[in-house]
Amino acid sequence: MSDGRANIMTMSWHMMVDFEPPILACVMSNGDYSFHALKKTRECVINIPTVELAQKVVACGNTSGRDVDKFKKFGFTPSTAASVRAPLIEECYANLECRVIDTKLVTQYGIFILQVVKAWIDRSQKRPRTIHHQGNGRFVVDGETIRLRSKMK
Amino acid sequence: MSDGRANIMTMSWHMMVDFEPPILACVMSNGDYSFHALKKTRECVINIPTVELAQKVVACGNTSGRDVDKFKKFGFTPSTAASVRAPLIEECYANLECRVIDTKLVTQYGIFILQVVKAWIDRSQKRPRTIHHQGNGRFVVDGETIRLRSKMK
Repeated sequence: MSDGRANIMTMSWHMMVDFEPPILACVMSNGDYSFHALKKTRECVINIPTVELAQKVVACGNTSGRDVDKFKKFGFTPSTAASVRAPLIEECYANLECRVIDTKLVTQYGIFILQVVKAWIDRSQKRPRTIHHQGNGRFVVDGETIRLRSKMK
Repeated sequence: MSDGRANIMTMSWHMMVDFEPPILACVMSNGDYSFHALKKTRECVINIPTVELAQKVVACGNTSGRDVDKFKKFGFTPSTAASVRAPLIEECYANLECRVIDTKLVTQYGIFILQVVKAWIDRSQKRPRTIHHQGNGRFVVDGETIRLRSKMK
């Protein structure tokens, strides 16, 4: 959200940081419109798309929220979040409502530390396949699943 | 490396931070033997395995370097790095020699900021398929590749 207007940004670089409480880290460039919105509002929703949305996801990444309303332009449906002002994107199979809890590495590296305050999942999507940017417009799609006895959560 | 001995740790949580210079972030628990080695030596190699090594990767993660020499136990081959003292793992298709450049978030979140000082790739592995831990021993393997016109690097 910025000036009462919701925006969508495509993000590649993020990771888990902790389970309890659930914490994530993500990287944004200070050239991104959303960088300044997140710094100011300290709230966002991370929406996780599946391969079916890949074309729209990339189109969102090729456009700036300075110029267009991406919800309208790409036909995404906003819905009200429980704990933050930014909306969820209904078409995405999971949505994580987040608050910024640490900005120590924002200026130097663009790294925001986020706590997930509410998580949503669309259980009607039975086998969601996510996409991973390998660079220069090449994406790998989730393939088979394997199970191995791991002590790691 | 710790006390002149090389160790291997299985890591799930990491992300890109920048291209130029190449910077990564990763998360380690202070319960991990390698956490203290990395804090002390400020050097490591990130070795990227393919699905063929999945069983060994998980076995490494289920064992502590306090107790065993994982190179010997799991049959990994160490080879000398160019810029750091920790060895590469020959069986992995890519190896990133790294130096710790920022420890501001280590104590609170276990987040290390690493600069890649030398990168190796095994070009004989034509279509390397990596694995991604979804939790509780379930891993998704890279599937098909798609191309979409992206402005993002």
